Amino acid sequence: MTLPSRVQLIDVGPRDGLQNEKPPVPAEIKIGLVHRLQAAGLTEIEVTSFVSPKWVPQMADNAVVMAGIERQVGVRYSVLTPNMVGFQAAVASRPHEIVVFGAASQAFSQKNINCSIEESMERFAPVVQAALAAGIAVRGAMSCTVGCPYEGEVSAASVAHLAGLMKQIGVQRVDVADTIGTGTPLKVQKAIEATLQHFDIDHICGHFHDTYGQALANTLAALQLGVWNFQSSVAGLGGCPYAKGATGNVATEDLVYMLHGMGITTGIDLDKLVDAGAFISDFLGRKPNSNVAQAILNKRAG
Amino acid sequence: MTLPSRVQLIDVGPRDGLQNEKPPVPAEIKIGLVHRLQAAGLTEIEVTSFVSPKWVPQMADNAVVMAGIERQVGVRYSVLTPNMVGFQAAVASRPHEIVVFGAASQAFSQKNINCSIEESMERFAPVVQAALAAGIAVRGAMSCTVGCPYEGEVSAASVAHLAGLMKQIGVQRVDVADTIGTGTPLKVQKAIEATLQHFDIDHICGHFHDTYGQALANTLAALQLGVWNFQSSVAGLGGCPYAKGATGNVATEDLVYMLHGMGITTGIDLDKLVDAGAFISDFLGRKPNSNVAQAILNKRAG
Repeated sequence: MTLPSRVQLIDVGPRDGLQNEKPPVPAEIKIGLVHRLQAAGLTEIEVTSFVSPKWVPQMADNAVVMAGIERQVGVRYSVLTPNMVGFQAAVASRPHEIVVFGAASQAFSQKNINCSIEESMERFAPVVQAALAAGIAVRGAMSCTVGCPYEGEVSAASVAHLAGLMKQIGVQRVDVADTIGTGTPLKVQKAIEATLQHFDIDHICGHFHDTYGQALANTLAALQLGVWNFQSSVAGLGGCPYAKGATGNVATEDLVYMLHGMGITTGIDLDKLVDAGAFISDFLGRKPNSNVAQAILNKRAG
Repeated sequence: MTLPSRVQLIDVGPRDGLQNEKPPVPAEIKIGLVHRLQAAGLTEIEVTSFVSPKWVPQMADNAVVMAGIERQVGVRYSVLTPNMVGFQAAVASRPHEIVVFGAASQAFSQKNINCSIEESMERFAPVVQAALAAGIAVRGAMSCTVGCPYEGEVSAASVAHLAGLMKQIGVQRVDVADTIGTGTPLKVQKAIEATLQHFDIDHICGHFHDTYGQALANTLAALQLGVWNFQSSVAGLGGCPYAKGATGNVATEDLVYMLHGMGITTGIDLDKLVDAGAFISDFLGRKPNSNVAQAILNKRAG
């Protein structure tokens, strides 16, 4: 079993985690969360999305949040840009990386963004070109790579097809996402292997949801293929919109605990990370959706 | 990665899961739970313990529960027997297997059962001999094989030492237990490898707690060494007495979901298993401590 000695984490909590909160979380709280994440050692943070406030009012404060962050050298701030209008608005905020997205399932693509997978990639192509021309990195989030709420199982061929389209429009690295958390280790490995047809291992991020409690086992399976970039959300922020009341993103705390326990470096201070998760969880009035955070907070309380 | 094609599960919910419930769960509910577990396809169930009711009033109904079960051919019922008195009381209940226990950590042994590891094994020796003479199988639960609430890390040598003592007194198979759930995949593999010095792979059961959310990743790591016997608790019954409010036993539902997703046979019907977990969780007035159960129950509720 050859494992990476270091893992790079992207915390998607401020964006992916908070985009469904009602009422929206105020900008100063989001900024406070980003500050605490970077204080804990996170060096990549997905901060916000530049999407129409009519669709996602929770992210209407995108420019305010990006402007309010006291940037740290060595930390990369990324934003989601669904189209050219969003990208143009994002540029002024000086993100290090923009994120475009596509689904490995046609049904999900149609229901989620109202067009085919191929059409979505055509629409993103000018955004990607504009970003690269402006010296901004581009990541492609590939959703439903192991399961789809409408189609069920997703084939390796579908994942490879999407990865190929992403590569073709100029995306530099991709997330292999288990959007509904139904994946198990061998299925996740198949999705990663399909992605490897178009991207090398250094340009593949694992993004696993914990809806069925499988995220850490899936992470282990991905590590065993050599994946060393992963996404997670502090305090497990962000539910699963396709399973009401169910867990979504795997908690960064749980992931960091496993990695450190395996002797894998992350550069993250787990105690400070738990503080960051407690800060936002306190604001939201609920417990962190993280076994590790709860165990550590219980221990602290004696 | 060579994986077993079949996994044998032991549900410890009725015993390990319910032994700390206050007030005690009535015998008829325990019996109902055992019936639902065997209806779901569980073929090994840890039913109760024959321990002094002064110490564990929750298990005072041990004989009533054992007598009340409508036994199914092919299902094995095990009970915990801490001493000769307990064993003699247990015999009339005709268990297929008794369970004795020991810790890989001296501090835990002293604090938990008030004697050294070696003394505990000496005390268990006559119980083991009596069981074998009566044609009853013997399993040895090895606690704290990856972490101890008092000593922290536990060495592979300590695990091997305990496994050797277990073998010496006649124990036929052992549980490698992560009692406080602090283990991570490589540490769990080390504990299993240490146990392999004295027991072959067919006589080693994995018993992982989910306190830090690591149980399924640890299970995957154990499967990769060839372990094919695992313990779990329906609905994640049983908290962690060493971390107040924290999760204890991994939920059988979560484990079965992962195994089936990997194409590994268990003989268990996941939907009926969720029903069994919902039955006991409803009685206890709380949600199942299982991501899979919650996701499936949410789906059923639409």
